[in-house]
Amino acid sequence: MKIDEILLKMKDTSELMVDLAYSALLYDNRQIAEEVLTLEDQIDEWNEKAQYLAVKRARETREIRKALVLIRLANSIENIADAALRIADVVLRDIEPHPIIKMMIDESDTAIVSGTVSKRSPLANRTLGETRLATETGMWIVALRRKNRWIYDPDENTLIKPGDILIARGPVEGRAHFVNVLKGKEEL
Amino acid sequence: MKIDEILLKMKDTSELMVDLAYSALLYDNRQIAEEVLTLEDQIDEWNEKAQYLAVKRARETREIRKALVLIRLANSIENIADAALRIADVVLRDIEPHPIIKMMIDESDTAIVSGTVSKRSPLANRTLGETRLATETGMWIVALRRKNRWIYDPDENTLIKPGDILIARGPVEGRAHFVNVLKGKEEL
Repeated sequence: MKIDEILLKMKDTSELMVDLAYSALLYDNRQIAEEVLTLEDQIDEWNEKAQYLAVKRARETREIRKALVLIRLANSIENIADAALRIADVVLRDIEPHPIIKMMIDESDTAIVSGTVSKRSPLANRTLGETRLATETGMWIVALRRKNRWIYDPDENTLIKPGDILIARGPVEGRAHFVNVLKGKEEL
Repeated sequence: MKIDEILLKMKDTSELMVDLAYSALLYDNRQIAEEVLTLEDQIDEWNEKAQYLAVKRARETREIRKALVLIRLANSIENIADAALRIADVVLRDIEPHPIIKMMIDESDTAIVSGTVSKRSPLANRTLGETRLATETGMWIVALRRKNRWIYDPDENTLIKPGDILIARGPVEGRAHFVNVLKGKEEL
């Protein structure tokens, strides 16, 4: 991977980690918290690689300040990922979920909401890309549970099936509509 | 403020700060970067207050582990805010914007997009709440510039006027539609 691709993956992954960390807290879910831990290892690896490539680039181009900006950025993103892990770690330590935390996540401008896809839902048996869920409702799927398996950060090709449990983040005003879409009570 | 209100504000503000930090980098905008600095001071103040209230609560309820969870959460959010400031600081240090960074922010799953509200835009002369922009398009207004003044984190009561420059974040698939809505070429 080139440095731009690595930084891009680091940014997107750090944002996913923050969403997953709050989701793990909200639903007191150990599996989601463990995924944050796995992603943090991945981020650390990318960060080392990014630092190496930035320094290599500086040697070749002699643009030291530009290299330092990239190193700084990679480190800052890694710090966000670290913070996400510390949030998720509350769940990994088996500490009883705190009502204040649930309330905080519930009332945030960016809500996290979860629900099961009904057979009648307009999402059922369509890919995420087909549904255009994010642009039609503002809700972004963070994770999806099918039977005993979790799928994190699903993409446009991910097929949604009846019975899937979705965890989404998005504007708090979109929560009720999203829940009704899951139930098949409202169109997209 | 009670501790739940403080933590809620910390969470929402830390998320805004990350969006603003990437926006400052993308548009090489010093004013936005300075807002991140101001918000970081605010977060530090809230963090101290949250720590104090958590310890006070522990003394009253004797639930030490629960208090520690709140302290840990407040500190983790503060770490995210710190990281946002380090990202914004690249701009404050007057370092030339790095093409790799612009590309990274541009190609991220969550795009940042900016544009001017045309007289013909369906957003013009309506409040953000009336437009239901976030749930109709997935785009979330991070900041708004009116003449020489910036408005950060506008809410549902914020009136959008022709000529306003909006900075929004949202799914990359929503970018083209949002730009056309700004221009008045597409309905919401």
